[in-house]
Amino acid sequence: MANTNPARGMRDFLPADVRKRNYVIGIIKEVYESYGFEPLETPSVENLDTLMGKYGEEGNQLIFKILKRGEKLRDARQETGDESTPSDISSLQSQVSSLSDLALRYDLTVPLARVVANNKNDLPKFFKRYQIQPVWRADRPARGRFREFYQCDVDAIGSSSRVVEAELISAVTQILTRLGFNDFVIRLNHRKVLADILDTAGVPADKHGDALVVIDKLDKIGQDGVRAELESRGIPNSASEMLLNIFEQTQKIVDEGKDVNRTIVSNLINIVSNEVLTEIGDILRFAGDCPIQLDPSLARGLSYYTGAIVEINVPDLAGSLAGGGRYDGLIGMFGKEQIPACGLSIGLERILVVMDERKMFDKPIAEGKLKLDSADVMVTMLGEESAAESLKLANELRRQGLRVTVYPEADKLSKQMKYADSIKVPFVCVLGESEIADGTVTLKNMKTGEQNAYPRVEIASKITK
Amino acid sequence: MANTNPARGMRDFLPADVRKRNYVIGIIKEVYESYGFEPLETPSVENLDTLMGKYGEEGNQLIFKILKRGEKLRDARQETGDESTPSDISSLQSQVSSLSDLALRYDLTVPLARVVANNKNDLPKFFKRYQIQPVWRADRPARGRFREFYQCDVDAIGSSSRVVEAELISAVTQILTRLGFNDFVIRLNHRKVLADILDTAGVPADKHGDALVVIDKLDKIGQDGVRAELESRGIPNSASEMLLNIFEQTQKIVDEGKDVNRTIVSNLINIVSNEVLTEIGDILRFAGDCPIQLDPSLARGLSYYTGAIVEINVPDLAGSLAGGGRYDGLIGMFGKEQIPACGLSIGLERILVVMDERKMFDKPIAEGKLKLDSADVMVTMLGEESAAESLKLANELRRQGLRVTVYPEADKLSKQMKYADSIKVPFVCVLGESEIADGTVTLKNMKTGEQNAYPRVEIASKITK
Repeated sequence: MANTNPARGMRDFLPADVRKRNYVIGIIKEVYESYGFEPLETPSVENLDTLMGKYGEEGNQLIFKILKRGEKLRDARQETGDESTPSDISSLQSQVSSLSDLALRYDLTVPLARVVANNKNDLPKFFKRYQIQPVWRADRPARGRFREFYQCDVDAIGSSSRVVEAELISAVTQILTRLGFNDFVIRLNHRKVLADILDTAGVPADKHGDALVVIDKLDKIGQDGVRAELESRGIPNSASEMLLNIFEQTQKIVDEGKDVNRTIVSNLINIVSNEVLTEIGDILRFAGDCPIQLDPSLARGLSYYTGAIVEINVPDLAGSLAGGGRYDGLIGMFGKEQIPACGLSIGLERILVVMDERKMFDKPIAEGKLKLDSADVMVTMLGEESAAESLKLANELRRQGLRVTVYPEADKLSKQMKYADSIKVPFVCVLGESEIADGTVTLKNMKTGEQNAYPRVEIASKITK
Repeated sequence: MANTNPARGMRDFLPADVRKRNYVIGIIKEVYESYGFEPLETPSVENLDTLMGKYGEEGNQLIFKILKRGEKLRDARQETGDESTPSDISSLQSQVSSLSDLALRYDLTVPLARVVANNKNDLPKFFKRYQIQPVWRADRPARGRFREFYQCDVDAIGSSSRVVEAELISAVTQILTRLGFNDFVIRLNHRKVLADILDTAGVPADKHGDALVVIDKLDKIGQDGVRAELESRGIPNSASEMLLNIFEQTQKIVDEGKDVNRTIVSNLINIVSNEVLTEIGDILRFAGDCPIQLDPSLARGLSYYTGAIVEINVPDLAGSLAGGGRYDGLIGMFGKEQIPACGLSIGLERILVVMDERKMFDKPIAEGKLKLDSADVMVTMLGEESAAESLKLANELRRQGLRVTVYPEADKLSKQMKYADSIKVPFVCVLGESEIADGTVTLKNMKTGEQNAYPRVEIASKITK
C-alpha cells in the first residue's frame, strides 16, 4: 500500500484547520489594509541565483533546490559526470548549482526586494505592501517547526522616516490585540545600538557579525553559552564580560519595571550616539500606545538589517510571534539604486499554536465570527423520485444566503440523520412525499431534537433565527 | 546587476492583480461553501512517489522534482556516479529518482486522494471539499500557459450517485454566472459512452487508451489530424472513419440547435448501454437549469476518469474554463478501499484572462464590490512636529472602518498631493498647525478638487458619504 502521509515536515490542513487559519489571515489582511498596505504575491519558485547568498551559509543549505529538467539536466550530468564522484558535502555543494536552476522561496523579503527592483517605474514612491504566502526551509522538523510554513509580511519601501517603523509596529499591535492577545511585548533594538555597544565593549569591528550571531542565541544558550561561543570565535574575554555586563544591567532595569524605556535610554547615553537614541525616541513616541520595551541585547539572526529591529514575544512561547526591522541595503543588491525599506513578519503557525493552546478560538466561535461547521443545514434525500425536489429546495435555501448540503443518495432516514450529526450541521430539512405534496418541509433542530413542519417559504427564516 | 525577473513561466502579482484574483477567489469560495463544500489545503511539496505514475508518461516529465539535500544527496551521487555518464534522456530519467525525493504538486486531485486514504477514519462518509491552491508544471510557457497556476477544485468523495455530478455542475454554473459569464457551455460526456462508441467503431479494446488521447486533440488538430494520428497508433482506418462519422453527426445536431441533448441521446441508443444513458439522463434532469450540452466526442486527457466527464467552454477561449469528471479508481491507488469520487476544477488564470479581455471587472468596480485603490484616504505630514498628530488622526479614522495611509515623512504639500494622485486615493486629509490648533481637518476630494475644513470628528462620515 502506498505511503499516504504528507512529506516530512509538511502538513495537510483539514477543514477545521483551514477555517481557523483563514480566520486569522482574514484579520491580518483587514488590519494591513486599514493601514494602507496593498497585497503582493510572488511565485513560490525563484531562480536559484535570486536566493543564494542572501541568508548566510546556513540559509544557503536550507533552501529547497529544484532539479533541472530534460536536456538541461542531461547537459549538467555530462559536465559533472566527468569529475570524480564527490565524497564530501562541500565538493557536492559546488555541484548543486549545476544540477539545479530553481529553488523554493525561503522568505518573503528577498522576493519583495527583487520585485521592487524589477518594477521600479510602476510602483509608487512609497510602496506599502503586505504578503501572506508560504515559504519553505529544509530544516530538521521539530515541535512547531515545519518545512512549509506561512509568513504574513508587511513592509514599507522608499522612506527612512521613523514613522514607518511606528506604523508597522502599530499595525501588528492592532492585529495581535484583535486576535485576543493582551500580554505580548514588542522588544525594540537598533543595529547601531548593538554596534556601539560592541565597540564600547572592545569587540573588533571585523568580529561584529560573529558577535551578533552569538548574541542572538542568548535566550537559548544563556550567559555561559554566549561566553564560550564568543571565545571560540576569537573575541577577547574582556569584551565578552563587558558585553554581558551591559545586557545584565538592562535586564535589571526590566525586572525593576519602573519607567523602563527611559531608564534604559539614559543608561545608553554614554555608549550610543545621540542620533540613534533620537531615532529610538521617535519610534517610541510615534507608536505611543504599543507595548514596546527596549532591549539592547536583541540581535535578530539575519544579516541584512541595518537599523531598528523588532521581535514580539509572549511568555508561553519560546520563539517569537513576529519580528523584523529595517534593511536599507537589500534592494540595492538587485537594482542600481539603494532604496530604504523596513518590514515586520508575523509567523502564522506560531500565532495558531498559542491561540489553540490558550483556547482563544472559543470567543470568535461563540460570537459567530468563526464557523467550524460544514453547512447551516442538510436536506435529506428520501427516494430517487424526490431527488430533483431535494436539489430544488437546496437551491432555494442557498439563494436566501444559507450554506446547504444535500444528502447525495436515497437512503434510510436514520442513516441520513447519523451523517448530519457527523458533519455537525445544526439543522436538517426532511423532504418526503407528503411534504412535497403539501408544500411543507419538516425542520429538525439537531441540538434540541425539536422537529416541526413549516411552509416551504418560511424554512430559511426559521433556520436563520 | 542581478536578474530581477521572476523565474521563467512564473509571475509576480502586483496589488491590482492580487485584488482581482482575490475577488474571483472570494466568489468561488462563497459558492462552494453555499453548497456545503469544506476547505482543504495540502502541502505544495509531495513525496515524489505520491505523484509519479499518476498523470501518464508526459505528466511524469512535467513534474518539478526537488533535489535531495546534504547527506542524502551525497549518497545518491556516489551511487549514480559509478555509472557511466548518461547520454540520453531516458537513461537520465531513471536516475532522477535517485537525485530527487520530493516534487511540487502537479494537481489537486492526487493530493486529495492521498488525504482521503490517510484520514479515512476522521473524514465524514461523504467528504465534500474545495481546494484553491497553486500547482506547478514544467511545461513550455506560452500565452495563458504558466508554470505556476491556481486550480479551484471542488470534489465530492464517497458517493456514486448522479446527484453528485449535478451538484458540482450546478455550483460551477452558479460561480460563472455570478462572475458575469452568460455564454458558457457545459459539455458533458461519459467515459463509457466513449468506450461503447470505440467498440462500435471497431477500435480494439487495448487501443482505447490511445484512441482517447487522440480524440482529446480533435479541437486542436481537426479531423485530418485525428485520422493520421489514429493510423500512426495502429488503429484501423475503417474504425477511424466510423468514429469521425459518429462525431460529425453529433456536430450536425448541435449546429441545428433543436432539442440537442434529446436528439443526441436518441442517436446513441443503438450504440450506448441503457444504464449509461440513464445516468446521463439523471444528470441532465438534476442539473436542469445548467447550460449542459452532450458531446460524445469529449475525451479529457487524464487517464483516471471512469464515468461522467465535463468541460466548460466560452467561444472566445481556445482551452476550457473548467473541467473534471468522475474518478472512482484513484483513491484505491492509495488505500485498501475503492472509494467513488467526482470533481470539477476551475482554472483561475483562464477565468481572469477572459474577464480582463471582456472588461468584466468594470461592473464589480462600479458597484464597489471590487476596490483597486490602495486606501480610502491619505493623511498628510506637514512637519516633524505634527507627525504624531497625523498618526493619531489616521488611527481615529481606522477605528471608524476606513483604510488610511499616512504620508510617511515631512514634505512639501504639493509633493504629497502628487503622491496621493499616484496611489489613487479618493480623499486627502490635510493636517497643518492651524488645523491641529482648532480641531479641524481640511478634506480634499481628489476627484472634484473640492476642499473644505471640517471638525475632526466629522471627517470619517464625510469620506464614507
